[in-house]
Amino acid sequence: MTVRFGLLGAGRIGKVHAKAIGSNPKAKLAAVADPMADAANAIATQYGAEVRTIEAIESAADIDAVVICTPTDTHADLIERFARAGKAIFCEKPVDLDVERVKACLRVVDETGATLMVGFNRRFDPHFQAVKQAIEEGQVGAVEMVTITSRDPGAPGVDYIKRSGGIFRDMTIHDFDIARFMLGEEIETVTAQGSVLVDPAIGAAGDYDSVSVMLSTASGKHATISNSRRATYGYDQRVEVHGSKGAVAIENQRPVSIEVANASGYTRPPLHDFFMTRYTEAYAREISSFIDFVESKSPASPSGTDGLIALALADAALKSVKEGRAVKVSEITGVMADKSVFQGR
Amino acid sequence: MTVRFGLLGAGRIGKVHAKAIGSNPKAKLAAVADPMADAANAIATQYGAEVRTIEAIESAADIDAVVICTPTDTHADLIERFARAGKAIFCEKPVDLDVERVKACLRVVDETGATLMVGFNRRFDPHFQAVKQAIEEGQVGAVEMVTITSRDPGAPGVDYIKRSGGIFRDMTIHDFDIARFMLGEEIETVTAQGSVLVDPAIGAAGDYDSVSVMLSTASGKHATISNSRRATYGYDQRVEVHGSKGAVAIENQRPVSIEVANASGYTRPPLHDFFMTRYTEAYAREISSFIDFVESKSPASPSGTDGLIALALADAALKSVKEGRAVKVSEITGVMADKSVFQGR
Amino acid sequence: MTVRFGLLGAGRIGKVHAKAIGSNPKAKLAAVADPMADAANAIATQYGAEVRTIEAIESAADIDAVVICTPTDTHADLIERFARAGKAIFCEKPVDLDVERVKACLRVVDETGATLMVGFNRRFDPHFQAVKQAIEEGQVGAVEMVTITSRDPGAPGVDYIKRSGGIFRDMTIHDFDIARFMLGEEIETVTAQGSVLVDPAIGAAGDYDSVSVMLSTASGKHATISNSRRATYGYDQRVEVHGSKGAVAIENQRPVSIEVANASGYTRPPLHDFFMTRYTEAYAREISSFIDFVESKSPASPSGTDGLIALALADAALKSVKEGRAVKVSEITGVMADKSVFQGR
Amino acid sequence: MTVRFGLLGAGRIGKVHAKAIGSNPKAKLAAVADPMADAANAIATQYGAEVRTIEAIESAADIDAVVICTPTDTHADLIERFARAGKAIFCEKPVDLDVERVKACLRVVDETGATLMVGFNRRFDPHFQAVKQAIEEGQVGAVEMVTITSRDPGAPGVDYIKRSGGIFRDMTIHDFDIARFMLGEEIETVTAQGSVLVDPAIGAAGDYDSVSVMLSTASGKHATISNSRRATYGYDQRVEVHGSKGAVAIENQRPVSIEVANASGYTRPPLHDFFMTRYTEAYAREISSFIDFVESKSPASPSGTDGLIALALADAALKSVKEGRAVKVSEITGVMADKSVFQGR
Repeated sequence: MTVRFGLLGAGRIGKVHAKAIGSNPKAKLAAVADPMADAANAIATQYGAEVRTIEAIESAADIDAVVICTPTDTHADLIERFARAGKAIFCEKPVDLDVERVKACLRVVDETGATLMVGFNRRFDPHFQAVKQAIEEGQVGAVEMVTITSRDPGAPGVDYIKRSGGIFRDMTIHDFDIARFMLGEEIETVTAQGSVLVDPAIGAAGDYDSVSVMLSTASGKHATISNSRRATYGYDQRVEVHGSKGAVAIENQRPVSIEVANASGYTRPPLHDFFMTRYTEAYAREISSFIDFVESKSPASPSGTDGLIALALADAALKSVKEGRAVKVSEITGVMADKSVFQGR
Repeated sequence: MTVRFGLLGAGRIGKVHAKAIGSNPKAKLAAVADPMADAANAIATQYGAEVRTIEAIESAADIDAVVICTPTDTHADLIERFARAGKAIFCEKPVDLDVERVKACLRVVDETGATLMVGFNRRFDPHFQAVKQAIEEGQVGAVEMVTITSRDPGAPGVDYIKRSGGIFRDMTIHDFDIARFMLGEEIETVTAQGSVLVDPAIGAAGDYDSVSVMLSTASGKHATISNSRRATYGYDQRVEVHGSKGAVAIENQRPVSIEVANASGYTRPPLHDFFMTRYTEAYAREISSFIDFVESKSPASPSGTDGLIALALADAALKSVKEGRAVKVSEITGVMADKSVFQGR
Repeated sequence: MTVRFGLLGAGRIGKVHAKAIGSNPKAKLAAVADPMADAANAIATQYGAEVRTIEAIESAADIDAVVICTPTDTHADLIERFARAGKAIFCEKPVDLDVERVKACLRVVDETGATLMVGFNRRFDPHFQAVKQAIEEGQVGAVEMVTITSRDPGAPGVDYIKRSGGIFRDMTIHDFDIARFMLGEEIETVTAQGSVLVDPAIGAAGDYDSVSVMLSTASGKHATISNSRRATYGYDQRVEVHGSKGAVAIENQRPVSIEVANASGYTRPPLHDFFMTRYTEAYAREISSFIDFVESKSPASPSGTDGLIALALADAALKSVKEGRAVKVSEITGVMADKSVFQGR
Repeated sequence: MTVRFGLLGAGRIGKVHAKAIGSNPKAKLAAVADPMADAANAIATQYGAEVRTIEAIESAADIDAVVICTPTDTHADLIERFARAGKAIFCEKPVDLDVERVKACLRVVDETGATLMVGFNRRFDPHFQAVKQAIEEGQVGAVEMVTITSRDPGAPGVDYIKRSGGIFRDMTIHDFDIARFMLGEEIETVTAQGSVLVDPAIGAAGDYDSVSVMLSTASGKHATISNSRRATYGYDQRVEVHGSKGAVAIENQRPVSIEVANASGYTRPPLHDFFMTRYTEAYAREISSFIDFVESKSPASPSGTDGLIALALADAALKSVKEGRAVKVSEITGVMADKSVFQGR
């Protein structure tokens, strides 16, 4: 079977997914929609696809699945429309910045029985996957404490931050998802602290640029997250899992692995300076997994619920900083039905 | 000048300090006191010292300084006695488990003008010192976020934990001191979470075996601490300092640095399995620094105040776990006069 | 400009080059030739090319360049034919196993003015390139000693060895080329020793499976090479360059970079187990460079002369093992006109 | 039992051994001899020993063993004298620079039944020992190829080189010994090349400053050695052992293990800059082993024969460079009776 794709949004991340689809033997990029005609044309030409409107893709008989790479505030509406149109849906995170809107959207997905996968690409990175596999093989015993460090090479513009929902919702959200992925148990409480150490303009916009978070689960497992909007040495992305029998960690990735030795010491080059070069392989594997879910008609993972929970953790973290206390996730989500979200890789 | 020492307590840590004194060309171990005659005799014989009572050391004209390695509940009393006797004092941490008792003791030290140094040995480890030096040389710019990981090879007996004041007071206390040492600014708030994941007996004794802590300073700097009473791979001791211009980290230490490669991968040996082999060099440098303070009659560092603050941070952490909120250090200490404790290395 | 390619040979390495051509925006795979119709068809279908005979490609007006991936004993003839047909030629190493035959072939290339590039893929690996760049930037000063370690995961079959010309001509030949690439100066003498330690059948076939080689240049620079046909820990590929101001080395590559710590120590996974996964990026960059040479009509590098010299070094190494002495390269090649082969990257 | 020592020579290496003896609970430094009275007095005072003449030590009833740290050209004579005097002898390498003189000296040792240990300190370094242990435990299977890299921070003065016998006899000799130690089989042939790349004055003195060596054993095992008199990044000391089941390597050692990350990359400090700080622990273990041999009256290792063979390998290497051919060790030594020198650690 070949899964025929419509791509909604031909921007930066749209190109990444177009490439992943184009080089996947089980997929065909059939159509691209974008208000910017040049962007849409460029992708269509490169992969032999057609430029169409969103409406045309919605009603097309030759489209099995869509990849939503449009601005965040359109995600929930598009998910609902394409769920009703019977298409399988891959949507970049987040579904929406508002928890209630996400819940409403997921109800539509539920009712229509649509396949929905949310784009937490790190779960598909070979190194993160190898950590998860080591856990599942029992190499570290029972997971006890997860430590996550994510630091970006540089802060985004304040314009972006205003639209993104702030550091917890646009940056830490990936770490919340990875914390759940590695802990294998739902998070119960969130405690966070935030500072403005990198750029006062970020503080003026009401956000933080340096945050620390502690998470705990019902059984007492911990996760800690450390984020900064700036790291001079590149795109710092680490996770370490400590368990009853041992620990496992990923090493940071760099474009070239050489070491120069001289009177100043032994120097290896900086890390990747951009998430797209760091996670090239993750994006390809992510689309490949989505295709497998579409083909097998099995529930996709990470699901809409995974997206909802990560967002709720971000909201809880923000509340914790403001109120100086541990915040229960249930304060944000209400009591949720168990969705059995830990299906492993 | 040769500094002539009396050693109070000939147990495990007493032996370590006896060796450091014995191999220091500026020092002479003159007397040892211990209720266990055999232990005292063994050290006395090895280093050409005399066995004496504490009282005899107190009144001896040939003793310049004492090293207090007796049980914790005797520390404050002994510090007061030897301060009044005009001896310079090196005391193993903690001064006492009660903040008010420590304060009272430090008042006596203050009144007598005695030299008091508290044994936070990690500050003298060559690797920790190199991190501190890198900070002072401006290699990482302004310090922003400090990450400390300390995990012991195995949990102590419950008997020890009952006497020690619990994990925050006997284990995390070293990390509190290192956090202050690296941040270069006083900590304002403490948030912590604790679990029992290693040994239920520890929980039954009212303590935790796995804790996470977040610290923040007035200017918004962060530190996070992760502790576990058990690490199968050895004595895990790491600190990482992230700043405006870069980051610096220490690598874990192992007795031998070889790597075996085979079909299972590339394997390096476990870490040191004991703090005494890990910190051999730190203990020697610690006593050497103390001797320098005694000789130069300058205030010792880490001081009694450093000991007091680290204890207060431990109390604040415990309070934070119990109450699920960020605790201000001033809730524990009251408002303290500025002691200008950041004198560098 | 789009360079239109004919692929000669649709086997294992042919597929690698087809993929590199197919994903290069400046290239189009137009035709494939292989006596195995299925293999040719598979590639043709995947990349939208036609299956043609070698003769048809030779005379085709729509083909600019060919990639020769046929058996070694056909390389020299095909190079001559396609040089005369006015096509640019990329040929997998070696041009031939016989030095005189290579020389004759290169004379034809010279006379026809054809572009000929020989496939020493390692020169295009990002890590090897970064080492070369560090040298060129002066980071290690004047190059003095190059150390190369290449070990294959497992020995090839004896059938392969009989056809390949033996370990020096099929395996060490890559290291000879890298030695020249890094030394930046021609090699004058070769000394080698060889043993059969891995598989007696290799010895019975008249070859070695474990070899060490020392090279020296006119100015006294050294290179040493260590090869084994078996390494349990994966595809071991290292180079280290020692110079007057420092040294630079590449680290071995593994598919995933995680580390598991437990009571047995700290373990990272084995290396890549296959040259094709190790050198994926190198193959893409190699074809990309070839396209640049074709477009710019500039002399290709590595050239036919580079291929000739590497083969001569292999012959010299074999002679050295047999005769127990340092062999001058000129004993093999005769005196050669300077071809100015060190054009950098 | 306490072994009572006489120290012959109070120079740089004499001090190292005095310290090792002084801190060993089974030993007592009883006497020191040196024509430089100040040097002898300093050591005597520090360790509570007497200053005596060599003659007095020779005839003293209260001396069990001597450590010979005098100039090389006195070693053989002193060994003979103290062997006849019934003392156990530890002698710094080499016994002599002339193979025949060494043989004559060892005959005296043999006749007198004296205990003689030659100072190849690296065998006692914890990291080298861990490699040897890994081999003996079968972790790498049958040893096949040993790779040794030794580079000094800077070249010694030409005066030293003239007395030392040249790079093969003063520097590579340690690597020859380690090659034998790790191979576990006698070396049969030596091939070497040498250049002057560091300092023309070394060439003017008739020596080389950059050498490469290949060794082979009767069963076809290889070792390669790479030496330079200058390494800007510190005291480079590596050994790697490749075997049928895997490989084992030591990592280079540095005084502090930190890593600074910034826009220039990740930098660790240079290596030790001096053999005495690099091998501190090795010297202590070496003397400790000697004491064990003296106490147990068992043959010492490394023995006089080990010293002889390492010297012969150096002579063979020099001959190989001069004659451009593989030199058999038997050309230097003649046929030697089997001394069964591979007793492990």
